[in-house]
Amino acid sequence: MRSLQFTAESSRNGLLERDFTVPGVPGVPGVPGVPGVPGVLWSPASAPAEPAPLILMAHGGGNHKKHPAMSGRAQRVVTGCGFHVAVIDAPGHGDRPRTAHDEEEVAELFRARAAGEPEGPIVVRYNDHLAQLAVPEYRATLDALQELPEIGAGGPVGFWGINMGTAIGVPLVAVEPRITAAVFGQHWPDVLAEKAKRITVPIEFDLQWDDEHISREEGLALFDAFASKEKSLHVNSGKHKELPRFEADSAVRFFARHLGGAVTAPA
Amino acid sequence: MRSLQFTAESSRNGLLERDFTVPGVPGVPGVPGVPGVPGVLWSPASAPAEPAPLILMAHGGGNHKKHPAMSGRAQRVVTGCGFHVAVIDAPGHGDRPRTAHDEEEVAELFRARAAGEPEGPIVVRYNDHLAQLAVPEYRATLDALQELPEIGAGGPVGFWGINMGTAIGVPLVAVEPRITAAVFGQHWPDVLAEKAKRITVPIEFDLQWDDEHISREEGLALFDAFASKEKSLHVNSGKHKELPRFEADSAVRFFARHLGGAVTAPA
Repeated sequence: MRSLQFTAESSRNGLLERDFTVPGVPGVPGVPGVPGVPGVLWSPASAPAEPAPLILMAHGGGNHKKHPAMSGRAQRVVTGCGFHVAVIDAPGHGDRPRTAHDEEEVAELFRARAAGEPEGPIVVRYNDHLAQLAVPEYRATLDALQELPEIGAGGPVGFWGINMGTAIGVPLVAVEPRITAAVFGQHWPDVLAEKAKRITVPIEFDLQWDDEHISREEGLALFDAFASKEKSLHVNSGKHKELPRFEADSAVRFFARHLGGAVTAPA
Repeated sequence: MRSLQFTAESSRNGLLERDFTVPGVPGVPGVPGVPGVPGVLWSPASAPAEPAPLILMAHGGGNHKKHPAMSGRAQRVVTGCGFHVAVIDAPGHGDRPRTAHDEEEVAELFRARAAGEPEGPIVVRYNDHLAQLAVPEYRATLDALQELPEIGAGGPVGFWGINMGTAIGVPLVAVEPRITAAVFGQHWPDVLAEKAKRITVPIEFDLQWDDEHISREEGLALFDAFASKEKSLHVNSGKHKELPRFEADSAVRFFARHLGGAVTAPA
């Protein structure tokens, strides 16, 4: 059975936060204490009468499902639009075990960083490996989330992931027809451009103009690859980690435009 | 004397609209019925107690100060932020006389367009000519507007102009220290890039990814030229005239961030 199991629940600032696991995902062995893929679902604390749209998010490399970047975006989406937001830990991240391969790749990344070598080749290949595991996990999570009456099958679904979230999201959105709008950004085109060519839903894409890891040409090439008739690129001055917070507000408005609903909070 | 003279007043949808002329601007000969530079000032219909920020706008080529693109943006700024918005007719546009040189350049543009030749070289040179006239006019208009108690001297001032509005705005903002935030877009770098290098205030810059007149390389080169520490580029799929309306909402939020105040209308 696939259904999602809630393991914890709390409420704060108008958000209902529920931890869950999705058991029985293919390729995810049972681990003691971690019986499936762990995730979190944020919803309006005062449940609406009707099913509401869902945003699937994916966290960045080295982070986890409840990193402040995730909870902060969820707060904006839930209070601004009344949508649901779900994130799962990526393989090797958060509450999930690291394999020997994970350890080797992370060590190699730290070594390259310390040596002042380019991180791109390592990040591209490791994120591609993680994405191959994560895509079926996200699809199974979406199956389980759509069994909940407050989300429902057939409702609008968006995807939001930057950095490693884009490495997972581009192959996911390329094969998942239930996702009809996506926010991506800050990744290399090497593996992803071919998959982006299969994406036709509206996208918003974030780049940093002074990114020390991803060149302007690489960033623009990935944006250019999307087949979407409607696509927006937001470039900001600043380095890789300096993506301005107002881009999160912009993403919320993007989802409000495409998945229905008005942004009610000033943003 | 420089002071602005109001010539008409009306009120609608929460906006007070006042036509004005700025007499005695250098280089602007007296014309029967058009004694100076004609402009329009949009303000909140219910005047706030305190002076409010001012956005100077410049219209596009072939348009005029009350073109729907101008009044639509003004509506967003005034109702969203409570700011004032002022636009003047560019030389040879709107209620202003056309010189023989204007007629020749417009005819040349239409000829090139009909022949399927590039418009860029003509637009670049003609807009540069108009900008040289318009920059002192804008500065004199700002002098006069700042004499009004509802605006006041020393208050925040922004500039917003796309297309020909950018051709006028870049040289204006380069020399006018009272303007501390600007929205530009959709012009060629040929004449403007050198002036953009002198601009350090925050900017937001709009490009169309499939612009049939301005290449991606040209658009990106102009964005790149700004010396601003804080600059944002918004690229959207679509042709030259398909700039999405949500970019106007984004510009309003940009001014709210930089000139003070929150956007109160959902956008």
